[in-house]
Amino acid sequence: MQPDWIAVDWGTTRLRVWAMSGAQPVAARASDKGMGGLTPEGFEPALLELIADWLPDRGQMPVIACGMVGARTGWAEAEYRATPCTPLDPHRATRPPVRDARLDPRILPGLSQAEPADVMRGEETQIAGFLAAQPDFDGTLCLPGTHCKWVAIRAGRVERFQTFMTGELFSLISRQSVLRLTIGDAATDDEAFAAAASRAMADPNAAHAGLFALRAGALLHDLGAEKAAGALSGLLIGAELGAARDFWHDRTTIVIGAPALARLYETPLRAAGADAAHLDGGELVLAGLTAARTALQEKP
Amino acid sequence: MQPDWIAVDWGTTRLRVWAMSGAQPVAARASDKGMGGLTPEGFEPALLELIADWLPDRGQMPVIACGMVGARTGWAEAEYRATPCTPLDPHRATRPPVRDARLDPRILPGLSQAEPADVMRGEETQIAGFLAAQPDFDGTLCLPGTHCKWVAIRAGRVERFQTFMTGELFSLISRQSVLRLTIGDAATDDEAFAAAASRAMADPNAAHAGLFALRAGALLHDLGAEKAAGALSGLLIGAELGAARDFWHDRTTIVIGAPALARLYETPLRAAGADAAHLDGGELVLAGLTAARTALQEKP
Repeated sequence: MQPDWIAVDWGTTRLRVWAMSGAQPVAARASDKGMGGLTPEGFEPALLELIADWLPDRGQMPVIACGMVGARTGWAEAEYRATPCTPLDPHRATRPPVRDARLDPRILPGLSQAEPADVMRGEETQIAGFLAAQPDFDGTLCLPGTHCKWVAIRAGRVERFQTFMTGELFSLISRQSVLRLTIGDAATDDEAFAAAASRAMADPNAAHAGLFALRAGALLHDLGAEKAAGALSGLLIGAELGAARDFWHDRTTIVIGAPALARLYETPLRAAGADAAHLDGGELVLAGLTAARTALQEKP
Repeated sequence: MQPDWIAVDWGTTRLRVWAMSGAQPVAARASDKGMGGLTPEGFEPALLELIADWLPDRGQMPVIACGMVGARTGWAEAEYRATPCTPLDPHRATRPPVRDARLDPRILPGLSQAEPADVMRGEETQIAGFLAAQPDFDGTLCLPGTHCKWVAIRAGRVERFQTFMTGELFSLISRQSVLRLTIGDAATDDEAFAAAASRAMADPNAAHAGLFALRAGALLHDLGAEKAAGALSGLLIGAELGAARDFWHDRTTIVIGAPALARLYETPLRAAGADAAHLDGGELVLAGLTAARTALQEKP
């Protein structure tokens, strides 16, 4: 089947593309040419590498992209739309200049919040994909990852959001601080995770005070790498959950992410009595890009 | 004047030695051959590089060392003495084997605390140096650095202590996380520091929730590198001060360190009404090593 547009999820470390026929993906490809490793001139070739044989001999192919590709240091800077607002407005997409005239690329805007200052690029498209299936959702979406986004939704709009750097902190502390000697790349022990998460949710000082104790525990009490990894993860995620309490307390909360990661958020939330569930959001970004395509066709 | 012993402060990144005549330093040298860059076989040559011409033609030279040189991955593992205890017991020093028979080295023990698990190596000798001058001190010592130690002292003994990884976290977050794009090696703005420290002392969630806002503030509101550096430092130190409140609330607290660093702790402590002062502790380690030498001579 001949594609009539191309969907692109272009993050810091990864580029994913889909050849689309209407709302149906007919082919999918990916590369590691994320925005983080490209100069502005590198984007068009990196994209063509994956999609050249999907392009028509004549005429233009619409390409709709979201993510860090729209950052200041990306292909072309896409704007931030100020919340509160709907997650998506493809009519405000940025159109980077191209050398290959068959390409008609648009980079979707991100979202911003003035105070407390916050930004997102890419997650807004996942949120749009979620709302395409559940337009009446009233509650909070939690999107964990390197940077975790907490997003309060009402009446189809993003009311406010907050970013936590928990994933990045875990990676830096476990691999590069003195705790690397104890943790490194060890898997996280579930029981140690649960105990530490519960402690840090109840006492926001626990994460500040408890880090070095993991190194000392290894030296004095033979604390193992997996227990220490679980405790570090629990301290950091528990601290995040405590600090994000306004987002999940008395609100339906859906954690969107791959099951192993989503569980690290969902389990302590449920243990704290929250109305929390999780959703494997693998294809939400595609649903969001499809919603953008539909909106552009309805009112070009 | 001929030295009769040699004092050694051997940390992770630096080696400092003094040729001593009784309690008087007659010469001082230093190199960057810290414990972190040496294999066990490398310690004796690294030491001899600095002190060979201080050694006698015959007979032995006492060498008294403290710090990470006594770590498991150091020259020879020195024990940890369990608190509560005095900071110093040179009779329990470890004597690493040497090839050069003129060397008689002793590595002083560190201190440990079983619960919450904690350890120190080197700071106990600074504490001993402090107590040599103020034996009746009753209060808290705060020793900031890569890892900051809070130490409760009474009747010449370390009652309990706690380590915070604040300096290491600041370095990792400012230079290696996404905030490196905003902060890097910028100096810290005093006003931004004070505001953030006060906020984080009052609300332990502020440091968890406030990190990414520094990146977003740069993108949305032109937050400058020095303001962001000051705010990051304030959030992390404020969180530490909040979590260490038991150590400084209603207790005389002395921050020991170089003035610029000590001020980052002393200023918010005083703003919070604490009885805090600071002491430039540059030579405390030498006073502690001298106290160890004296104790060994009194009862060899």
